[in-house]
Amino acid sequence: MKTAIFFILNEYADWKGPYLSSQLNQNSEWTVKTASFSDEVTSIGGFKTIIDYQIDELPEKIDLLILIGGNSWDVKNETLRKLISDRLKSDQPVGAICGAVDYLAKNGLLSGYQHTGNSQAIWKNYSEYNNPDQFLPQQVVSDRNLVTANGTAALDFTEAVLKLIQFLPDKQLKPLIELYDNVFYEYCKKYGNPF
Amino acid sequence: MKTAIFFILNEYADWKGPYLSSQLNQNSEWTVKTASFSDEVTSIGGFKTIIDYQIDELPEKIDLLILIGGNSWDVKNETLRKLISDRLKSDQPVGAICGAVDYLAKNGLLSGYQHTGNSQAIWKNYSEYNNPDQFLPQQVVSDRNLVTANGTAALDFTEAVLKLIQFLPDKQLKPLIELYDNVFYEYCKKYGNPF
Repeated sequence: MKTAIFFILNEYADWKGPYLSSQLNQNSEWTVKTASFSDEVTSIGGFKTIIDYQIDELPEKIDLLILIGGNSWDVKNETLRKLISDRLKSDQPVGAICGAVDYLAKNGLLSGYQHTGNSQAIWKNYSEYNNPDQFLPQQVVSDRNLVTANGTAALDFTEAVLKLIQFLPDKQLKPLIELYDNVFYEYCKKYGNPF
Repeated sequence: MKTAIFFILNEYADWKGPYLSSQLNQNSEWTVKTASFSDEVTSIGGFKTIIDYQIDELPEKIDLLILIGGNSWDVKNETLRKLISDRLKSDQPVGAICGAVDYLAKNGLLSGYQHTGNSQAIWKNYSEYNNPDQFLPQQVVSDRNLVTANGTAALDFTEAVLKLIQFLPDKQLKPLIELYDNVFYEYCKKYGNPF
């Protein structure tokens, strides 16, 4: 069984992870677990989430680390920073969206990677953000083992992360994403009703 | 303060409620609470959610009732059925998406309403579903105080529900929905970067 860890904080953004978490957790080879700095966090939308792993109790084997944006990413935690840094250096998949990309920028974790995010404007005072020329104003950027996305790009982020981990052959991944990206009854005409 | 109740069951679909819950809960006039038949439910994506209200302990004043789809809507519960029926009859807002619309069909709660859903095929044996000619193959259908949507239409559902409760003037609602419906950096050119 492969494990995807979704790292979430208080006031995490409800809409950024669900397409990805639901695809992964429905697959018999994958399980989704949450991680944070506390036992329970509440989403921006008011949903109270019980956390599976505290930051210091994470399993050794993490097959995918996903950092979900929100209003609380202005954090300092060496265990988290080192976890991400080690994964990036050892070619293990990491995905970050919205406020979580701000965290990567602030901690110098985007260095050497093409990337995107919500806005470079808030990063200009980050002394460790040293590669602004590698910023691309796109929905999502995938560079080797790191996927970054702006906060509105939940579906593009899902597609890029699933590609990175070779979740499905491309020809199967395409309709899976299209299901949520288009008008449903148009989709049904093209592929049939999936329900 | 107005209260929106999101009714969710085990294996609820993570991606169907977040655009709506986050918009409501960020507004100072609204609060989002969850309700279910148990203290805790787990989403399809593996997120464990602590429930605010059990079905028999709901507050008297509910300003918006949202029924979120998932894999467990084949339920029988008279309190829930009566709650929905009473709201529909007394012109109080109800929104249902995906499997939750199947529940309405099965319990005769779509009667008299234009509606949509995932597929009529699974409703043909529901003896209480008596208005198949009022089914519209659309992303979302809003008819008086009831909004219904198929399971891929989270954003259209959000827009229709927010319109129903007159959450924002139309000219403010449009860019809010477009933010998630279009390419972000195109949106920024049109409206400016919201972050």
